[in-house]
This record gives sequence, structure tokens and C-alpha cells, in this order.
Amino acid sequence: MEIVVQKYGGSSVKDPDRIKNVANRIKLRVKEGLKLIVVVSAMGKTTDNLTKLAREISPDPDPRELDMLLSTGEQISAALLAMALKDMGVKAISFNALQLNISTTPEHNSARIVDINTDMIFEKFSYYDVIVITGFQGINQRGDITTLGRGGSDTSAVALAAKLNVPCEIYSDVDGIYTCDPRLHPEAKKHFYITYDEILEMAALGAKVLHSRAVEIAKKYKVQLYCASSFTDEEGTRVVDELPEWLEKPLVSGAAISENQMKITVFNVPRDENLLARIFKKLSENNLNVDMISMVPTGDKMALSFTILETHKKNIEEILRESLNEFEDFNISYDGEYSKISVVGVGMRSSPGVAYRFFEAVARAGAKPELVTTSEIKMSCLIPKEKANDVLKEIVKEFNL
Amino acid sequence: MEIVVQKYGGSSVKDPDRIKNVANRIKLRVKEGLKLIVVVSAMGKTTDNLTKLAREISPDPDPRELDMLLSTGEQISAALLAMALKDMGVKAISFNALQLNISTTPEHNSARIVDINTDMIFEKFSYYDVIVITGFQGINQRGDITTLGRGGSDTSAVALAAKLNVPCEIYSDVDGIYTCDPRLHPEAKKHFYITYDEILEMAALGAKVLHSRAVEIAKKYKVQLYCASSFTDEEGTRVVDELPEWLEKPLVSGAAISENQMKITVFNVPRDENLLARIFKKLSENNLNVDMISMVPTGDKMALSFTILETHKKNIEEILRESLNEFEDFNISYDGEYSKISVVGVGMRSSPGVAYRFFEAVARAGAKPELVTTSEIKMSCLIPKEKANDVLKEIVKEFNL
Repeated sequence: MEIVVQKYGGSSVKDPDRIKNVANRIKLRVKEGLKLIVVVSAMGKTTDNLTKLAREISPDPDPRELDMLLSTGEQISAALLAMALKDMGVKAISFNALQLNISTTPEHNSARIVDINTDMIFEKFSYYDVIVITGFQGINQRGDITTLGRGGSDTSAVALAAKLNVPCEIYSDVDGIYTCDPRLHPEAKKHFYITYDEILEMAALGAKVLHSRAVEIAKKYKVQLYCASSFTDEEGTRVVDELPEWLEKPLVSGAAISENQMKITVFNVPRDENLLARIFKKLSENNLNVDMISMVPTGDKMALSFTILETHKKNIEEILRESLNEFEDFNISYDGEYSKISVVGVGMRSSPGVAYRFFEAVARAGAKPELVTTSEIKMSCLIPKEKANDVLKEIVKEFNL
Repeated sequence: MEIVVQKYGGSSVKDPDRIKNVANRIKLRVKEGLKLIVVVSAMGKTTDNLTKLAREISPDPDPRELDMLLSTGEQISAALLAMALKDMGVKAISFNALQLNISTTPEHNSARIVDINTDMIFEKFSYYDVIVITGFQGINQRGDITTLGRGGSDTSAVALAAKLNVPCEIYSDVDGIYTCDPRLHPEAKKHFYITYDEILEMAALGAKVLHSRAVEIAKKYKVQLYCASSFTDEEGTRVVDELPEWLEKPLVSGAAISENQMKITVFNVPRDENLLARIFKKLSENNLNVDMISMVPTGDKMALSFTILETHKKNIEEILRESLNEFEDFNISYDGEYSKISVVGVGMRSSPGVAYRFFEAVARAGAKPELVTTSEIKMSCLIPKEKANDVLKEIVKEFNL
């Protein structure tokens, strides 16, 4: 029995016509002799609309009841897709997370999958060819419905594929993974192969290709991932552990801009690792995602810089002053209106020339780097936001993206 | 622990404001020290909209998947109501039929409740004051979601009340049960007490006050039923087994019109009980609801009349001819454009004068009865539809309704 997991996103099932289109694509694969597990998201804007309804009831909706509410979105698309398949003569059946016993951690709105009981799936495959499953949701030990957070349907699909040790196909309205955002840069090129690590760096850059948690699971369990469009038959992108030998490895496989960055610098505080830990713990407790951390020692003092999203700047001063209340003589500067530009590529590991070419491209566009951070396969630079597009153009040219 | 079951219909929870209104009403009862089980229908037109969506997918949607789809409607309102209650500081929690294990017969779209495991309810009441439950749905032995058919939320509520042996309150946008439709007849009077039997006859007449199956269960288990509006604080109607002794029993407690009636008469067929059974079995197999059956023997032959809804007349000729194919010389007449007018009342049992006063009222309106049927507490008469309102006016006057 050859099994494949497929996942269809919200735009792929946004109305009855698109659902029938998906059913047709599934039918073709069933005719090839495959058994399919199909994970679906909620139709189009359903989740947003349900969230809006909840906020009309309460400014701070109870998390358990919010999950009870939101989980209906995927149940609607799962039932409709199974209906469409049965109408075409395909042996299909839909299940929700309660019926399939997809167990998760206890917390609501951002639970993590703990285990999936696959016995029922194998039992159902003795008769059915397609099992349609509600993505994005599970149940915790109390029997309450949980949801996995934004992009959680990708996670559901990859977790199922990992558990069953079968390939996973993720369908959306984008026909694969590009070197940079093809809507903004028509010259962007599609990757036919890309590594988990590159995608992880890309996802963090906001490329919105795949949910990071799904890729983490795929990497951990070496799930064969394939991303393509449900709207066309264009070949998509295969996500792999290592690029195939025959493929010429590009130095840089992608570039992206993150907007609305704010740089915060704390001057003249003691150079103390406990203090560093305390500051970032405090920020994390306040759900502030910190990026581009950079520390410059000056004797037994230090200057510490990092970036946050400008939308998160509320309370930041108060939080910092709380961590620093035992010191005097320190200064904090807050500078907004920056963008972060990054390049990613496994080829960077073995090629020392990327850094200077990257900075040359930045300089050619007339931008002055404010902060620089690097990882093994990524290099990022904070620049004034008005220069961001010029820099990206120079980078796309320089690395032939 | 004093428990009450409440049920709120679709118009009572049709938008966030109405849901908050319901939550406020519930909160007042909790303050009185009650524990509440609240059964909710889907918001406003949700079920109709989901059904429409299903028909866009398939002209004949798979019944199992249709139930999977429709059951989301009640889950949405249950989650939102629990959210509103928690937001007001009420200890509330919502459950769907899977979580509560409300078991039903196997068939989809019109299942019947078999049992309800109330252990979980008592366990939850040790902490929570309000348990919000999705009406209209259950699960069958295969673990599939089933629905109970139109008006099924009434059935869910009454079944829970019967199982727990507690009172049941049904809230809708009508503030009780009237002698005839108050929207058409402003002179209609409200019943403060009415018997199960009268309601059963009224429901069959299309008075749409309460779902008949719910009343059947209430009658069987002697559930204290109370029907009122969630929009006002007007006193509603108590449904009881026998009217209280102190209440003057009216002869006739209600009158109603059923429209779109068609009379069918088969002349000159053998007077044979097997033939009668065969005809009505055939009609039933084709889901044709037959009403007002009347048989007049003429020697060893008979004339057989009955009514159906005009909307069901498709295929009726073919079905009848199939049952009669061994005979010759018979005739069938099909006459449409009739209405059925009925009066109901437990007082009729002990009072022989109702029939003549009924026929006098019909005659005063200048209507000629086409068919007459009677039960112990009901009397119905088929008349040309253009006379229906005049007849109803005369009846309302005659019996002081």
C-alpha cells in the first residue's frame, strides 16, 4: 500500500469550485493506485471571520472556547471535500481530530502534536482510498479541542507523514519556493530543490512559504516534502536534507526583506553574562521576539544592540528599565524605520567570498549597514528602510537569483 | 444540586449581541443557585447556508459528510456562548456530541438519540455552573457524527432533561403557545398551560411551536416543559400531562391552517385491506406523507381519498398506478388548491358539542367541506383555500380563541 500525505491550504479550498478542483486532482492520484491522506485548512478567510466573531463576544476570548470555535473551520472544508470526492465516485471519508485522536500538548491556541494514532487510518484504508483530515487541530489529555497556531495545518500534514514514514505534498496558491518574493521581483527564480535548513532560514525571514514548525519536523524525521500549487500543473519545489550531487549548488539560494525593524541599543552597562540572560528573559516573558543581537565590549562595560518589530515597541522601555534598575549611567537609544535584508544558501558554508560580495552589493545601493548578523548559511544586514528595494535589486543581480 | 436544561433556538443566538443577551439571562439563573445545561442551535441561518454550500458541491450530498458539515453550526454557537459567559465571570464550558458521547441510532440526517452518558455532566458540575451543549447532533456506534433532523435541538434538550429527570425550558423568538398563529391573527390568546397531547396535534398542524419528537419524549418521560421568548420577560407556556384542576378547561385550545393541500381519490377498486396496505406502503416508500385518509365502501368496491402536500405531487400518479396495476376500471382524481383547517383541544374528549359548532362555523364562512377527519382531541376539515381565512375567523369567534 503506497500512501502519500497531501495538504491543501485555505486558498486551495476557498469555494465549492476550488474544492471540486482539488477533488479532481486527488482522483487522478487515486487512479494511479495511491492511498491518500488529505489534510485541509479552513476555507479562505473562515478562520479570520471566526476570530472576528469571537472578538465581538469578548475582547479576550477564552482560549479553550476559541479553539472549540476555530476548529469548525477545518471540519467544514474536510466534510465538503469528502462530499465532492464521493460525488465523483472516489471512496473517501472525513475525520476530525477528536475522531482520529490526534493528541497534543495541553495549551490552547498553540498546542504541539504529541502523537497520532495511525491504527484507525490503516483500518480505514482497507476500504477507503482517501482519508480527509481536519488540519490545524488536535485534542489534549482532558479531551478538549486544541489548535496548533497559524500555519498549523502544515504541521498536521508533516507530522502525519513523519509518523507513517511517507512523503508529504503541500499545496497552496504559490507554485513553489523562489529565490525571492516573485510578486515583488518578477526576475525571481524557482528552486526545484532546496534544503530544510535553507527553508528554515527563509521562513524566519518572512518568506511565508511553509510553516517553520512543519519544516523542523520534516527535517527531524527526514520527511520528503514537495511544495506546489493546486491551481496549476507547474512542477514545484522538493525540500531535501542535502541537495542532489548532480545539482550545481548555488552560493546563495534566496534573498528577502523583513520590514518594520526597530534597533534598540543599551550603552554603558556592565559586561555580565547574567545581565544578558536577564534582559532577554524579561523580553521573552513579555512575548517580545528579539532578532539581530549584537554585543560590543568596551572594557568591563558593553554596548548591546538588538532589533524588534516596530509594532512590538509598546512597553519596551519599561521592560528594559526593569531589568536594569540596579544600574545608573546607562543610556538606551530607540531607532525605527529600518529594514533587514538577508541572503541564505547552503553554499555559503564552503565559500568565503559571499560576505564581501554581499557588502559590495549593499554599498552599491548606497546603504549604510546599521547591524550585521550571520549564521552558517545566512547573512543579514539592517539598513534604512528606504534603501531596502535598491539593495535587494543589487543582491539579486550579484548572486544571479 | 438543582439542575435545569435550557434550549435556545437559532434566532436567540443569531449574532454576538443576541448571544450576549442569552448569556445575561443565564447569569441571572446561576445567581439564583441553579446549575444549567444549555443546549444551543446554530446561529440564525447557518444550517441553511451550510446546506446550500453542500448542494453546490453535490446535488445529492453524502449523508455522513452532510452531518459532519452541519454539526459545525451548533459547535460555533456553543463555543461563542461559553465565551460570552466566561467573559461575564460565569463558570461555563462547552461540549460537542463527540465529547459528551450522545449516542444515536446509525442513520444520518435523521438519527434518534439512544442514550446520553450523564456521568461527565455531573463531574463537570462539581466545578462549572453552566454546561453548553451542541444541540441537534450525536454520534453513532461507528463514531460518526449524526444529526437529528430539523428541530433536533429541541429533542436534544428534552432528552437530556428526561435522562436527568429535571425541568426543560425552550426559548425561541415566540413568547409561548397561542390558540392560533398570532402573526396572522392578532386576537390569538396565549396558553399558560397546555397538554402534551394538544401540542402534539398542534405541531402536526404546522404550528411550529415545538418539534413533535421533543414533545413525544417529554410526554413519555413526563418532562416539565416551559416555552418562552429569549427576547422578553413575558411569561411563557407550561406544557403538562393534565391541565391543573383549578384551570377552566377550554373545549378547543387551538386552531390552525395547513396550506397547499391536494386531494386524491381512487374510485372503483376492490374493498380489500391488503390493497389499502399496499397503496400506503408504496406511498411511504416514496417518502410521501399522507394525511386525511378517508375510505367509503360501495358494495365490494370502495372509494379511497387522502391528501398530500401539493409540492409532493410529482410521481404520485405513477406510484398509484403501480400499486393498482392488476385492476381495470378504476379512476383517479387529483384536486389541488385546498387548505386544511383544524381545531384541537383536550376538552373535546368530554364534550359532544364541538363537532356541530365546528361545522356551523365552516358553513357560516360559506365553505364546503371536501374531507373530514377526527381524532380524540382534533377535528380537521379540507376546504377550498380561498375560504380558509374566513373559516378560521369564524372558528376563532365561535370558540373564543
